Amino acid sequence: MAPQSATVPAAPALLLDLYELTIAQSYFDHGMHAPATFSLFARHLPPGWGYFVAAGLDDVLTYLETLAFDAGDLDYLRSTGLFTEPFLALLGRLRFTGSVRALEEGTVFFPNEPVLEVTAPIIEAQIVETVVFNQVHLQTIIASKAARCVEAAQGQRLVDFSLRRTHGTDAGLKVARCAYLAGFDATSNVLAAQRYGIPPAGTMAHSYVRAFPDETAAFRAFAETYPDGTILLVDTYDTLEGTRQAARVGRELAAAGHHLGGVRLDSGDLVALSFDARRILDEAGLCDATIFVSGSLDEHEIARAVTSQAPIDGFGVGSRLGVSADAPYLDMAYKLVADAGEPTLKLSAGKATWPGPKQVWRICQGGIITQDWITRLDEPPIPEAEPLLVPVMQQGKRLTEQTEETLATARVRLRREVAALPATCRRLAGPESPAVHFSPALIQVRERLASHIVRGLGQTAAA
Amino acid sequence: MAPQSATVPAAPALLLDLYELTIAQSYFDHGMHAPATFSLFARHLPPGWGYFVAAGLDDVLTYLETLAFDAGDLDYLRSTGLFTEPFLALLGRLRFTGSVRALEEGTVFFPNEPVLEVTAPIIEAQIVETVVFNQVHLQTIIASKAARCVEAAQGQRLVDFSLRRTHGTDAGLKVARCAYLAGFDATSNVLAAQRYGIPPAGTMAHSYVRAFPDETAAFRAFAETYPDGTILLVDTYDTLEGTRQAARVGRELAAAGHHLGGVRLDSGDLVALSFDARRILDEAGLCDATIFVSGSLDEHEIARAVTSQAPIDGFGVGSRLGVSADAPYLDMAYKLVADAGEPTLKLSAGKATWPGPKQVWRICQGGIITQDWITRLDEPPIPEAEPLLVPVMQQGKRLTEQTEETLATARVRLRREVAALPATCRRLAGPESPAVHFSPALIQVRERLASHIVRGLGQTAAA
Repeated sequence: MAPQSATVPAAPALLLDLYELTIAQSYFDHGMHAPATFSLFARHLPPGWGYFVAAGLDDVLTYLETLAFDAGDLDYLRSTGLFTEPFLALLGRLRFTGSVRALEEGTVFFPNEPVLEVTAPIIEAQIVETVVFNQVHLQTIIASKAARCVEAAQGQRLVDFSLRRTHGTDAGLKVARCAYLAGFDATSNVLAAQRYGIPPAGTMAHSYVRAFPDETAAFRAFAETYPDGTILLVDTYDTLEGTRQAARVGRELAAAGHHLGGVRLDSGDLVALSFDARRILDEAGLCDATIFVSGSLDEHEIARAVTSQAPIDGFGVGSRLGVSADAPYLDMAYKLVADAGEPTLKLSAGKATWPGPKQVWRICQGGIITQDWITRLDEPPIPEAEPLLVPVMQQGKRLTEQTEETLATARVRLRREVAALPATCRRLAGPESPAVHFSPALIQVRERLASHIVRGLGQTAAA
Repeated sequence: MAPQSATVPAAPALLLDLYELTIAQSYFDHGMHAPATFSLFARHLPPGWGYFVAAGLDDVLTYLETLAFDAGDLDYLRSTGLFTEPFLALLGRLRFTGSVRALEEGTVFFPNEPVLEVTAPIIEAQIVETVVFNQVHLQTIIASKAARCVEAAQGQRLVDFSLRRTHGTDAGLKVARCAYLAGFDATSNVLAAQRYGIPPAGTMAHSYVRAFPDETAAFRAFAETYPDGTILLVDTYDTLEGTRQAARVGRELAAAGHHLGGVRLDSGDLVALSFDARRILDEAGLCDATIFVSGSLDEHEIARAVTSQAPIDGFGVGSRLGVSADAPYLDMAYKLVADAGEPTLKLSAGKATWPGPKQVWRICQGGIITQDWITRLDEPPIPEAEPLLVPVMQQGKRLTEQTEETLATARVRLRREVAALPATCRRLAGPESPAVHFSPALIQVRERLASHIVRGLGQTAAA
């Protein structure tokens, strides 16, 4: 089934913070239409994380390509009394006509490195802030968290089970997509499977088991519907007794020329139970039957199972992935870095920015990332370094057609990128990121602007 | 502007876990169409929380009323090879025909108390699990978290600023709605304001300030566009110097017959800065200008400001509300409690359920909640107690029309409910919930079922 994301609008035009529009009204009043550049970046990694994974660009580009205020939107805005008719007329005509340079989805990155930079007439660049931020923020968190699960699983099967506890329906779709981008094998989310071309997967529910007089009857009934490859959920009453019932049904299936897929353990000490379940299955001659586990898993629980050499063939990962439980939000910012061609700077306590459009250069040695450099965009290339921000939109049009391959390509890119990270950066506990340097030219322009601002403040205060 | 939530489909039919459909296929194969009851409840409060606030029912009912699989959905399901044509034909005809009993939105509740119970032919009741869970889970978390912020603010103005960091677009809408339900005054989210009839609010961005040659020029420009009531963001360069510039513009506005709304502080020690900013504004004769703060706020930071008697008039609450940072997911479950009229039970380690359809009875003394009782639905009323679960849908139809008042009514209900909580339950640190008892009849049926299951297991193990 073909993925369909291109046909789904990313967000309604009114989904934005009010101040984007009041600011735009004021720019309009003052005839300010020159191009500005905004940079989206994260200030810090969450504790224990070694890198970020860029994600969400595809939805950003769809949003920018389809952004348009309709008559109902304008009627509502008119009713607030905050906007003039000439400005509302402008909004009615407004389309995004700017350009975007961005890290491609699946690229790893570090604090202070721009994920994307938007250059457009300042009203356009301002208005798109909320949704651009919202989508890149969510998807970067989830792709990064999922990449940690993939690292922990060491090649074992991973399935996204998060939909019931993701924050709403949009997050449900995006979590499934980002988990797959990061290397998950499948999702329980049927709509995400259809829309993004992800393999759908699932087992059975406790309620199914309890809808039959006993566990064996339930297992036999499910095996009648799905006689080959089915996974039976064995912990409704007692995990090991359930595994024995599953093994009995597995032998019955084998006798009839079919095969049991395996069992799923969803509660208790999954590592300890998996050893016992493996023995029960093996003793029943069901050496091919797999053991799948779920229940409060995250990268640390997965790593514990893998390190214990538990005979677990796959993991269903739900809530803790779906909400990124240890880091549900990032210290991210969408900052004005250039206005009418001039670099700008913000000095708020703890929230200072780096001025001007930028490039990120990555240097590898022996296939391993050793350092990144953040430079001004107009600096000459750094020899033997790869520039990471690439043009992805110009004059409001995508530069590369969105295809069914968009997600698959990002998935392959991430696998390659993670393989190029130093082991010290990939590890789950106490990771160390490669060095990220600022170029002398960037430091120079920042110092020049900062001294200018400080002098300006001093004069004002003395006046 | 009229709220529009009734016209917006809550979720596409394919947005569900695959196993809902494979289980349904198996029920279909075995002719299982009898009604079943599922109960949605939370097992534990997050650490430090004293109560939950029920929310999300409105979206659940809209979803149930509009659920329908279209031809494209069926085509995709057919392509998976998991479903038979007769079952797909059933899905194509399927509408939700069951009934729902639920806590009304804005009701406070405690662990083990059902938020809602769905009774329907088992295939229908199973298929709706994912979205019902997803919406109630998210909205209950956010309404509960927001109620804590309202408790902390002690009547000061609260504005939802979370949209850029909510998990996707649907969460953005639902967070704004639930914050308003819990007593917030406004939201920055324009679409939520339009859709739900919430007052929209906002100030200005740092980027606006930096788009002008200096701060005073920016403030004057914004004040030209919005000469009355505007809030100026003063921390782009230096908070107190910015406040002085804002005061200067405030005096200019006053001289021209207009008035400055106030200033917004967005970084640094907000409590300490607010005292200094207040003095600057007062010394400029701007005693009516308010001080609004934002930046990494949650209920604890708000309480600290209020307890410090900081001269802060309002709080913009963003990420930590929008993702419920300390409790981004709940230990919630949607469990089969009755099948074909018979109560059922699950015994998994740490995840046992209470059998049968239930009622929750609330007992107050002197207007304060003293205890709740969870009973079998068919037990006689408890004298002088209020039953909390009310019928909200029968035969697939809402029992009370959805109106513009749905959210406003829930908001008033919650205010009344919170006022009836003991102070020991409302406090932010170390809260204690009222006692929740299980009725003797409920305990009896659970023990009968448990002993039956244990005997059954024992026989099987011995066989």
